[in-house]
Amino acid sequence: MASISGFPEFLPQGRFVEMRAIDIMRSVFELHGFTSIQTRSIEPLSELSRKGEITKEIYAVRRLHADAGTEETWGLHYDLTIPFARYVSEHAGHLSFPFRRYQIQPAWRGERPQEGRFREFWQADIDIVGQSELGFHHDAEVALVMMDACTQLHQQMGIPPVLMRINNRALIEGLYTGLGIDDPLPVIQAVDKLAKIGESGVRKMLDATGVDKDLQDKIVAFAGVNSTRGDVEEQVRSFGVTNDLLERGVRDVMALHSTVSQSYPSQVVVDAKIARGLDYYTGSVFEIELQGYETLGTISAGGRYDHLASDGKNAYPGVGVSFGLSRVLVPLISQGGLTASRCVPSAVLIAVDSEEERHKAEEVATVLRERGISCEVSPNSAKYGKQIHFAQRRGIPYVWFGSVQGQVKDIRSGEQIDADAHRWIIDDIDLSPQIIPIGRNC
Amino acid sequence: MASISGFPEFLPQGRFVEMRAIDIMRSVFELHGFTSIQTRSIEPLSELSRKGEITKEIYAVRRLHADAGTEETWGLHYDLTIPFARYVSEHAGHLSFPFRRYQIQPAWRGERPQEGRFREFWQADIDIVGQSELGFHHDAEVALVMMDACTQLHQQMGIPPVLMRINNRALIEGLYTGLGIDDPLPVIQAVDKLAKIGESGVRKMLDATGVDKDLQDKIVAFAGVNSTRGDVEEQVRSFGVTNDLLERGVRDVMALHSTVSQSYPSQVVVDAKIARGLDYYTGSVFEIELQGYETLGTISAGGRYDHLASDGKNAYPGVGVSFGLSRVLVPLISQGGLTASRCVPSAVLIAVDSEEERHKAEEVATVLRERGISCEVSPNSAKYGKQIHFAQRRGIPYVWFGSVQGQVKDIRSGEQIDADAHRWIIDDIDLSPQIIPIGRNC
Repeated sequence: MASISGFPEFLPQGRFVEMRAIDIMRSVFELHGFTSIQTRSIEPLSELSRKGEITKEIYAVRRLHADAGTEETWGLHYDLTIPFARYVSEHAGHLSFPFRRYQIQPAWRGERPQEGRFREFWQADIDIVGQSELGFHHDAEVALVMMDACTQLHQQMGIPPVLMRINNRALIEGLYTGLGIDDPLPVIQAVDKLAKIGESGVRKMLDATGVDKDLQDKIVAFAGVNSTRGDVEEQVRSFGVTNDLLERGVRDVMALHSTVSQSYPSQVVVDAKIARGLDYYTGSVFEIELQGYETLGTISAGGRYDHLASDGKNAYPGVGVSFGLSRVLVPLISQGGLTASRCVPSAVLIAVDSEEERHKAEEVATVLRERGISCEVSPNSAKYGKQIHFAQRRGIPYVWFGSVQGQVKDIRSGEQIDADAHRWIIDDIDLSPQIIPIGRNC
Repeated sequence: MASISGFPEFLPQGRFVEMRAIDIMRSVFELHGFTSIQTRSIEPLSELSRKGEITKEIYAVRRLHADAGTEETWGLHYDLTIPFARYVSEHAGHLSFPFRRYQIQPAWRGERPQEGRFREFWQADIDIVGQSELGFHHDAEVALVMMDACTQLHQQMGIPPVLMRINNRALIEGLYTGLGIDDPLPVIQAVDKLAKIGESGVRKMLDATGVDKDLQDKIVAFAGVNSTRGDVEEQVRSFGVTNDLLERGVRDVMALHSTVSQSYPSQVVVDAKIARGLDYYTGSVFEIELQGYETLGTISAGGRYDHLASDGKNAYPGVGVSFGLSRVLVPLISQGGLTASRCVPSAVLIAVDSEEERHKAEEVATVLRERGISCEVSPNSAKYGKQIHFAQRRGIPYVWFGSVQGQVKDIRSGEQIDADAHRWIIDDIDLSPQIIPIGRNC
């Protein structure tokens, strides 16, 4: 009956914070014309196992009383991208392209639990997928939509401000091939771990793939290229490589930087070490971190993929960003003190004089609810002092006494006034629980 | 890449219907002071296997690359009651009792797929749990809250109206023990299947538990007791049984009927065959069906349980009702034609004159979004006719041309007017997709 490590659960106030964050993201995504979908929690293991590295973390699922010797054929999805790609190719005939969707769901990974890593975690993803083609301007669009969502989380909930790092796979692969590296993927996956394992760790991984010391120096130097001013081109030129892939990468990453920085001038950086380890990215890549909470790592990431989904007849190029809801909220709620002003939705407790009079309290509640005011009737008819204490413990701001024409007490100020449940005015701020930002006491 | 039987997924319009249903239920539950919680998807198999009958349907979960020979220790939860009971005993120190929560989440059962049964399905549960004690008036409360939710689904979405059948375990057990049946549970579980397997099927099950023909006649006759008028008492008296349990049952079921029928006079029936197969119910039991859609079976059910949760020190008596969201929505959407007026949230498509002018369209979109109007910018700068067709295919009602001071066309009427994005008024009904009720064409 104890908690299971890596499967976080919120108490009611934390859950309220989580719902508010989800409501904000949903609202931003819908304002930008993204449609909600949900995919089933399981996928065939054959689909889940195609993406290399991550295979070992899959949770397999099978009927407990399946015939002995039956192998698992399904696993819980470990992200929302693979299921979305499958959804698109399965339902393509019923979708209109470019298809813009958001998806807010849990995913599962059988990782060893560690700081900031969970085995069940919520993600909020947006993607735009085209049929056969998808304009490059959508790369900037998804980046801007996610920045808008992060900005709303900051302004409405006090979630720390974000920094977006951008790069382009064409730039990386163009440079690596120009340096004579035939298979860039293992190098990309090594450099992707730079923040985690440091330069010496990366060099060790490069040793293992047979990259010599001289080339390692250049790879490490290139990973150091970054700029907030869009002057990436000259830094890249210093490596003396020229090819079409590199030129496309330089042009695209600068165009992306230019568009995003118009709206978020101090919050976007070109950073050549950003690569994303997954092999399906083919162009722009993004990573977002929380300013002042860099130890939480990358809280949102994504990029362009030209070949993830395909149904034989059509390819479905896409671009998307994933936001780690649990990754952000679990530490901010459990350690950062992000919370809500009360642990129940009720704004009013209706006191009960005696069990015979309970129906009168129910009448008051019905009138208030018809006016959109959340309330609950006292579970017992104890002395008023005890009923007020019941409200206090839950953070309910008002207690109602008597009938529909009765009295209402603001238990914070102690002020008690005559009131008619049909007409009583409640402050907007008291109508639903409020977010208490990080570091401010309730 | 094909659909997996029993794991339903909605297209965007169906998902919109589902979200609207969830929003309505959430709103009703919060108006009644219920707090949202979510529990993790997995529980220890030892917890899940305690409840008998259902064990065979559990999906076991384990890391795909767990050491060979490792047994599964976790399973996906098959309802939201067991995880909630665990949540309460685990977090009791941080909760205030009586604790009122709602929970809207998927659950999983490894059933053979059949009409109306799913292997992954969404439920919406409400429960009120007390510490050591919980007043009987909460039984009527949860019944009324669920009836309120069903009524809102009917009024706002055209979901068919419901009928609630109520009974009481004390009445059943009192009668059975009065008839000389020592272990009533197998009899309860047999009678619970009456609607599914008919009288002869029930008699076969009773044969197997050694109940003689004479007693079977009485059991079947008792299962026929039902009343919309609250005259259950005389029907029960005709069996000539008297004991404390029976008296409590008669009193409680009549009190519950009286309270619920005050608000829903023609929608609540006392029905002695309603028992719920699960062994944890100890008092009131409820079942809800859709009027005119009785073939969908029970779409919502619940009851009183005095001993489900316990942490050694305290017992946590509770009462709750579960609503089968997938059970209702999947057939109504896939066969009943319940749908939405468009497949995207966007109310406006902003036309693009040329790729060089795309930024002007983006400016219009930004102004509209700041005013809470969902919109999207055309993915290309094709001829206006093609861009209008793009909007039509998605059901987007308006297309905007030009700059912030531009023109807007209602593509249904063809009317086009000069408009300023800062001031243009959109009808509320066009702001977000509307539900198209069952049987009415789009």
